[in-house]
Amino acid sequence: MKVRDIGEFGLIRRIDRAVSRKRSFARDLLIGIGDDAAVWRPRAHQVATVDTLAEDVHFTREFCSWTDVGWKAMAVNLSDIAAMGAMPRWALVALTLPETTGVGEVKSLFRGMTQCGQRQDIHIVGGNLTRGPKVILSVTVIGEAPASELWKRDGARQGDVIAVTGRLGEAAAGLEALRHGVRTGSAVRRYRRPRPRNDLQRLLKKGRVRVHAAIDLSDGLASDLRHVCEASDVGAQIDLGKIPVARSAVELGRRFQKDSLDWALHGGEDYELLLWMTASDFRKARTILRNNITQIGVATRSRRIDFLRNGIRTDRQAIGFRHF
Amino acid sequence: MKVRDIGEFGLIRRIDRAVSRKRSFARDLLIGIGDDAAVWRPRAHQVATVDTLAEDVHFTREFCSWTDVGWKAMAVNLSDIAAMGAMPRWALVALTLPETTGVGEVKSLFRGMTQCGQRQDIHIVGGNLTRGPKVILSVTVIGEAPASELWKRDGARQGDVIAVTGRLGEAAAGLEALRHGVRTGSAVRRYRRPRPRNDLQRLLKKGRVRVHAAIDLSDGLASDLRHVCEASDVGAQIDLGKIPVARSAVELGRRFQKDSLDWALHGGEDYELLLWMTASDFRKARTILRNNITQIGVATRSRRIDFLRNGIRTDRQAIGFRHF
Repeated sequence: MKVRDIGEFGLIRRIDRAVSRKRSFARDLLIGIGDDAAVWRPRAHQVATVDTLAEDVHFTREFCSWTDVGWKAMAVNLSDIAAMGAMPRWALVALTLPETTGVGEVKSLFRGMTQCGQRQDIHIVGGNLTRGPKVILSVTVIGEAPASELWKRDGARQGDVIAVTGRLGEAAAGLEALRHGVRTGSAVRRYRRPRPRNDLQRLLKKGRVRVHAAIDLSDGLASDLRHVCEASDVGAQIDLGKIPVARSAVELGRRFQKDSLDWALHGGEDYELLLWMTASDFRKARTILRNNITQIGVATRSRRIDFLRNGIRTDRQAIGFRHF
Repeated sequence: MKVRDIGEFGLIRRIDRAVSRKRSFARDLLIGIGDDAAVWRPRAHQVATVDTLAEDVHFTREFCSWTDVGWKAMAVNLSDIAAMGAMPRWALVALTLPETTGVGEVKSLFRGMTQCGQRQDIHIVGGNLTRGPKVILSVTVIGEAPASELWKRDGARQGDVIAVTGRLGEAAAGLEALRHGVRTGSAVRRYRRPRPRNDLQRLLKKGRVRVHAAIDLSDGLASDLRHVCEASDVGAQIDLGKIPVARSAVELGRRFQKDSLDWALHGGEDYELLLWMTASDFRKARTILRNNITQIGVATRSRRIDFLRNGIRTDRQAIGFRHF
């Protein structure tokens, strides 16, 4: 059954049913799908972000299932909320798709979104459907945090430890693997279903770790690092030997004769967090996160960004993926 | 100069400059464009909506300038907020566009959005840019209202006056005029730059008019009416002779041999409000709005919707524009 067979309102009803089971338990939600707008009661400052996944730009249907696409569209937004030290609460979905799309495919797309948000107290409360030649999925996520607990980009200080969560390069390795016909493995899974770090802010705040600045790694470590340095008016010395490259990325790099460190620096889509904090807070964070966080450098006074190898400057550049 | 010449971040900086003059005065805004997410202090319940304009579906570049498209994308969302009885505050913009788009064109698009929102205390605080084959513009608007003052779809009551603001059919008449090569006149202006009714809720609330239910006329009176009747579990008797058809629509209907009442009922895009209230509240509203509101029918107990002509049922149907 195609979208054009059941019409716009038929599709909205089915989507509403698909996402509403959990939503009926949503604290603070007054109005969900089905009115002119959604309404909720705010509990703290509102933190809002929007991100778009476009077919043949961010994904191809050859490499990603409909569920994967839905998952990823939600994940990239949850990651932005995580990078602010906030809790995600509400999502609105603007979906453009060809009228020949199967109804089951649209349901899979929404299933991916709800599955990705399942561990969070997040609910799809509104949206919009539009006909178009390609699938374009824009998700807006609104989260909450007290103003004093926000992790901003402009708070990094000279002498701060620069730390990264998890392991990098795996998403780019997964994409390379898919291009070579590999369809399984942790790198492919990571590329298709990134796991945003929404668990972190609760753990770190509970452990009284003060984060000075944060950003999520969407474009790539090198590029995202630069955004924070510019906003905070500091520089960075990054020790290339300390960058935690994912084991699967190293293996796939060897297999396909690619530099896995390049993936870690410029590949993007890992959706780990890059954090600035004092050395003593970093030690606390390492204990709380069971070593799932690594110091990769320090913030410096000069505005330059240096990538060091055994203490010697290399010619690596702080650039990443750009859309245009 | 094309978008691809200045890159994604260059474009974001220019957009930020274009929209930030007014934003710097935004009360309650902690973080705007340039971090992982926007942050604001909420003052009441949050009211959120998203709408998409897609090239060659909602607009063609032949009939609409870039400024028109930006204006309209903002207007359709402001209208949804107006229909909730809420005040618009914040907007996030997800824009997909070809890399050959001119930088000046993108600035015009954003100028249209800010111009449309100028009379309101609304600010563009975040967004996303994506490469794509066609222009697709999704705008999320978040407004505010106390919970007790929301205008919902499910509050219409048997015996309520059904009233509509302004005059209808003009947007559809304008589109027809454009198809015939007419490029000026109030109908064409109305089609290109609809004026959402965000002034209304303040006026009516100040005058202590209680609105039981409301919806904005985006798909067409007949279709939008049905949404409220279904949500409120009531019916409607609409007097076709009382529907306020815009004078320009009547004239263009005569000129192009089209039924202007059809435009008023099914044309859509007028972005007036359809309201349910008691007869005594309607009298108050008429005074406050200086007759710029018209009773077109009454809410009935049965769930059927009848369109009457001189008191006699006609075979008009309650359907409007659908996307699929």
